[in-house]
This record gives sequence, structure tokens and C-alpha cells, in this order.
Amino acid sequence: MTADEVVTLADVEAARDRLADVVHRTPLDGSTTLADRCGADAVGLKLENTQRTGSFKIRGAYNAMSRLSDAERERGVVTASAGNHAQGVALAGRLLDVDATVVVPEVTPAAKIEATRGYGAEVLVEGADYERSYERALELADEGRTFVHPFDDGDVIAGQGTVGLELREQFDPDTVLVSIGGGGLISGIATALKAHDPNVRVVGVQPEGAAHAKPSLSEGRIHRLDEVDTVAEGIADARLLEKTFAVIRERVDDVVAVTDRDLAVATTVLAERAKTVAEAAGAAPVAALLSRAVDVEGERVACVVSGGNTNLTDHAELTRIGLSELGRYVDARLALADWPTDVGAVVETVEADGAELDVLERARRTASDEPNRTPVRIGIEGSGPEHLVGVLRALDSLSGVAVVEHSLDPTNGAAGDSD
Amino acid sequence: MTADEVVTLADVEAARDRLADVVHRTPLDGSTTLADRCGADAVGLKLENTQRTGSFKIRGAYNAMSRLSDAERERGVVTASAGNHAQGVALAGRLLDVDATVVVPEVTPAAKIEATRGYGAEVLVEGADYERSYERALELADEGRTFVHPFDDGDVIAGQGTVGLELREQFDPDTVLVSIGGGGLISGIATALKAHDPNVRVVGVQPEGAAHAKPSLSEGRIHRLDEVDTVAEGIADARLLEKTFAVIRERVDDVVAVTDRDLAVATTVLAERAKTVAEAAGAAPVAALLSRAVDVEGERVACVVSGGNTNLTDHAELTRIGLSELGRYVDARLALADWPTDVGAVVETVEADGAELDVLERARRTASDEPNRTPVRIGIEGSGPEHLVGVLRALDSLSGVAVVEHSLDPTNGAAGDSD
Repeated sequence: MTADEVVTLADVEAARDRLADVVHRTPLDGSTTLADRCGADAVGLKLENTQRTGSFKIRGAYNAMSRLSDAERERGVVTASAGNHAQGVALAGRLLDVDATVVVPEVTPAAKIEATRGYGAEVLVEGADYERSYERALELADEGRTFVHPFDDGDVIAGQGTVGLELREQFDPDTVLVSIGGGGLISGIATALKAHDPNVRVVGVQPEGAAHAKPSLSEGRIHRLDEVDTVAEGIADARLLEKTFAVIRERVDDVVAVTDRDLAVATTVLAERAKTVAEAAGAAPVAALLSRAVDVEGERVACVVSGGNTNLTDHAELTRIGLSELGRYVDARLALADWPTDVGAVVETVEADGAELDVLERARRTASDEPNRTPVRIGIEGSGPEHLVGVLRALDSLSGVAVVEHSLDPTNGAAGDSD
Repeated sequence: MTADEVVTLADVEAARDRLADVVHRTPLDGSTTLADRCGADAVGLKLENTQRTGSFKIRGAYNAMSRLSDAERERGVVTASAGNHAQGVALAGRLLDVDATVVVPEVTPAAKIEATRGYGAEVLVEGADYERSYERALELADEGRTFVHPFDDGDVIAGQGTVGLELREQFDPDTVLVSIGGGGLISGIATALKAHDPNVRVVGVQPEGAAHAKPSLSEGRIHRLDEVDTVAEGIADARLLEKTFAVIRERVDDVVAVTDRDLAVATTVLAERAKTVAEAAGAAPVAALLSRAVDVEGERVACVVSGGNTNLTDHAELTRIGLSELGRYVDARLALADWPTDVGAVVETVEADGAELDVLERARRTASDEPNRTPVRIGIEGSGPEHLVGVLRALDSLSGVAVVEHSLDPTNGAAGDSD
């Protein structure tokens, strides 16, 4: 199969016409901070996390479903998805007046089920994992419903490709970074951009725990992972499929991998500097930039922030990990001679230095603690490792207070561990 | 003093020309969710949190500083600010090659000091609170430096007014909601909009703990609060000043107040639905919408999200409060008969129902606990009060597990408190 047999620029342009009054033309936000940090001439963030349903998936789902015959529409559609595709199919169903059924695995967060039902789809919670739900959806398709594949479909890919057309008008990039799960989004974007200018570089980004695309390209056939393990559930796929492999092989220049910690840092920088809430999968391109997985010196680089559907408690957890990675957050255990009097001095010392006391907990005394000292756990946000080391030193030098242990990487210059 | 003596549309238009190549024309993001929830025809979010320096303040600071004489520039500028204005003056100083000194109170978070220094300003940490820092800045002005007021200055107000010109082009609102601290932003926006169309309604929003503008309007003179108490530090001012009072009296239609809990809910909805990180002050207009403090039935409503400079740990705390207010998060105390075996059943039960277990902590046993039960504290995120009540019921019905207490409002229908 050739890429042209799957999808062409003309298909993407036709999709754009169909989507014109349906999807948002999402903003392209320039980031001086990111450009400075990676040596690029300019960095643009394509904010598909602000797309309707919170991700790009509505583009492909709507394009594919709008092309169904009257008979197919009447029978309704079915798909399997634990996340963004479910919401895309559900909203497209409502807009096109097509009955939509989505099979979701039992572990799907209730918030996503609610959102999908909110768009009017019927949600069947069936299957211990995605593969089982997928099988159940195929059964329903055998019984008459039309299956809408999350990525391995020319019309779906063409819909996702409209992101590329917008990017070109809004930013005109030298390099575009796009996350890869099943590969639908990058297939569409590469198709849209390469036809105009074969010199635009399109680079895929995957988590190390789901990095199947690079071996697929080097082996010349679809590489399937036995196991997938990443915080980025939105791109936790085990392999490409036939169509996305055909397109990516011809039109994508390279694929790089990032760690889950890189994803946490990228999510944090997006929240703190770009003021935008991305899910881990959506932060992958920025993670590739910040970890220098791609050399973009002097270039205009576009990062597609593909989605923002995350529980806020998960997002908070991830950004706290990101702050820790950046040396901006420290967990420490203190020993106080005089509880609770010393607590006042601890709080004052942290705040006098302009740091932020996030938590302070009286901890359980363990065998390794001095019997006449009260153990306290604290979490502090600061401006950097030097700042936090300074705060820990100030705490350690308080009369009656000792810093027993802390989480800052010792290579950053740790404070003494007792007074 | 009349409003026209302070600032006119011509001043705002001149500011726009000066700012054209300096500030971002920030995006206007439409929100169907918010429109549905408040009965408006359409809601637009003007995202000044994505402005350079993370707030609108750069507009006024740059406009004012670009109008200084050569002699004034040479002497440098000084201001006092614990937050967004500091960064605005610092960046404007760098762009205009004017030496900038910012006096910040001792409590200023280190991250904001770092950011201000990052723009090249000299930061003096002096004064236990803002009033002291302000006095110190005035002393430095007496010694020769030019003082750049955070809001009570015609050029500063004109710069902030450019937000209004953009709003008109991007959205053409019937009603605009703007937070009020010292009143510079709303004075500028009202000036820009009312000159074009006196029927546009401009409504100010303040936290209940800093609601000085409404009494100022009703009393016909500046009302000064003795005490200010709100989570929205960016608008925690005690009063208007002469110029902003003159403009607001003539050009602002109404002022409403919101609670800190309303601000938490608005911050949460902005993060979850609009995928944008707002500081509490920036979420105030959305809080007014969601709390129905303003009737906007059938209207086109613009909310100015004025800033997004917040510690991420503070933002996470605020959104967790917001989720609790929405019945989407519950803190509960359980008693387990068989620790740690029962923990597995607890985790499975929460997740099987599609809820998210945020924390699970072995708690300290207190006198009111059964001696042969182990107390555990949990925090769960779910899709709504009904969902969480269902999860608590399921936990309570587990053999060996009892829900001792929880934080859901009993009017939502609480679970039984023991098994």
C-alpha cells in the first residue's frame, strides 16, 4: 500500500471544507520561553487542547462520519475508545444526527463517560481493557453498525490533516513535532504539509514506554510492542496499523522518544509559561523540545498540543513531579525539638525566603528518629534548586530544627542533613 | 475630575499604535459550556493570561513608559508591586532600554521575583507589606526616578484599554465582565467600548473580601476598606484612587461581588473546560457568570481573564477546592477491619466505579476510633455528587469497611456513616 492510496492533499482539503463550520480553528500561541530554551528561532504551540471535545479527534471523526451513505447513517455508528476519540464520535454523531454507540473499557474515568454521554452517545462499559472493548465494538459492527476506526482510516486521517493546513497558514514551520499513538494525527499533518513543501520536517514523538514507530520504520514492517507502559494514556498504543504505517513510512522524517519525566516537565512548563492545560500525550512534542531529543537550532518549530482531557487531580500530580524534576519542588523530613512551637519558625523561615509551603504534616515517629524529636514532613515550591537549597539550609540552621532528608538531587548541592 | 480629563478613546487608540509590535493580540476563546451554564447566547474569554508576562499589565506599563521624556528615561523608573505590574514594568524597561527598579514586599513569592529579575529589572525586597514597599518606591521617586503607578495614571489606563479595542473586533459583546482591583483595567476597557457604543454594558467584579468599588459608586466618593481578605491577591486592593474613580463613576454600569469559593469554582471550570490556567483574580469574571451575579440571558458576554501568574501548587489547591464545591471531589475517613488487606478492596471499588483515587493515607487512630479498626483517609475525584455518593455507598457496603465521615454536602444525599 502506498501513502497516496491512503490519503492525499486533496482529501485533506476536502475535509477542511466539511469541517469549516464544525470545528474551531484553534489558536497558534507563540512561546519565547520555549524558543529560548531550545535554541529555536521561534516556537509555536498549536492548541488542539482547546478544540471542541478537548482534542483534535473531532476532526477525523466528523469527516469520516459525514461521508457515510444514508443507509450507513441510518444503521448508526460504533467505536471503541477510552478517551478522546469517544468524545469526537459522540459529538460528530450529535451534529450529524447519527446514532453513536461507544464501547469503553471498565477502567474509563467516569468524567470521560459523562462527557461522552453528554454529547448524546450511548456508552457501553464493557471489557476489562481496550482490546476487549474493541472486540465488542467489532461485534456490534458485524450486527450492522458502521465502525469508525480511531486512526486507521483514510477519512479519519484526512480530517486530522486539517490541523496541518491551519499550521501552515498560522506559522509556516520548518519543523513540526507531533505525538504518535496509532499515528492518525501525524499521518494527516504530514500529508498536508509535505505536498506543499517536501522540505518541511515532520517528526513524531512517542513515550519510551510505547515507542513502536521508530522500530517499525527501521525494520520496514509494523513493530508490535508486547507491553506498553507510560503516563501518557492518550498515546499508549502498541503499534501502527497498515494505513498509518504506509503514510508514516513515506512522509514522516523521524521519530524520537521521551521519558515520562520529560512529559511531566513539559506539562509543567505548558501550565506555568503557556498557561495551558495539556494531557501528557499532548505535551509530548514540547517534551521532545525541552529534552533536546530534536535539534531545532535556528528553526521555526511547531508543537501540536493535541489534547487536554485530564483529571485535574492527575494534572496537579504530574506538574508537581515536573516541578520536582526542575528543582522547583522539594519534599523534606524535619526533626523538631519543640513541637508545636518550632512549627511557627519553620513556616516563617520558608516564607521569608519567598518560597511556598505546600504541605506540612506531623509524621509518624519511626525507629530511626530520635525519641525526643518530632518528625515533620514538608513540601516546598521555590524558584529553583539554589533557592530551595538555601531554604533548607536556613531551616537546618534554626535552633531545634534539623533537616533529616530531602528529595533534591544531591548533584544540585544538597543542604547538610543534620545540625 | 471628569473621566475625559483622565483618558479618552483617542488616548487608547494612540496606545494601540505604540503597543502594536510589543504585546500579543491575545486570543478570544468561545466557550459553549459557559454559555449553556449561564443562559447566555455566547461567552467569549479574552485570554490576557497568555499575554507577555502572564497578564495585561505590560500594556499599561509600556504605554506609560514609552511616553517619558528623554530626561525621565535617563533617570530610570521605579514602582512598587508584588506581582503582575512588577513584571510589566520590568519587561517594558528592557524593551525601551529604561532602567527599572521594582520594590517588592518581603512576602513576594520567589518565582515572581525571579521572573521580574529575568526581565532585567532591579528588585529591592523591602517592606513587610505592600504599603511599606509603596512608600519606599515613592522615596526613590523623590530621589529622581520616575514613578510608574500600577493603575492611577491616564497613560497606564489607556494602555489597558487596548484590551477593549481588541475585544470589540474579536467578539462585539453586549456585556463585558472585568475584575477590579485598583480599577485601571476596567477604566481603560470601559473607555474604549463606551465611546463606540454607549449601550455596551461594562460590569466590574470584585471578591467579597475586597469589594470597595460598589460602595464607592453608591456613596459618590472613594470608599476605603479597613481590611482586605481574599484568595485573589491580584485584586486585593482596599480602594480606587482619584482617576480610576472618576472613570468608573461615569463609564462602568455596575459592580458585583463573588465569594472566594466562587473564584475556586471558576478557576476549576477554566482549567477543565477552557484548558487555561488563570490566577484567582483572572477568574473573577467567570465566577460572576457561574454564580449568576449578573443576568446575561440571551446576551453575548465577554469575560476578561486578566492574568495567569500563580504558583502551580496554589493553582492545584484552588482547583481541588473548586472540584469539592462542584461535588466532584470528596475527602472521606474510613475504618478498616483488616489492614492492609482491605486497602486492595477499597482501591478496586473506587476504580471499578470510574472514580479517581487521589490520595489514600493511613491516619492516626484517635480516641473516637474503634480500637480494632484502622483509620484511613482518602480523597476521590468523580463526575458529580451522585457518582461520589455511589462510590461511598459501595465502599461502606464492603465487608470490613466503614465510611466514618466525608466532606460531601449532606444536601447532595450523603451515604450512610457506618455499616
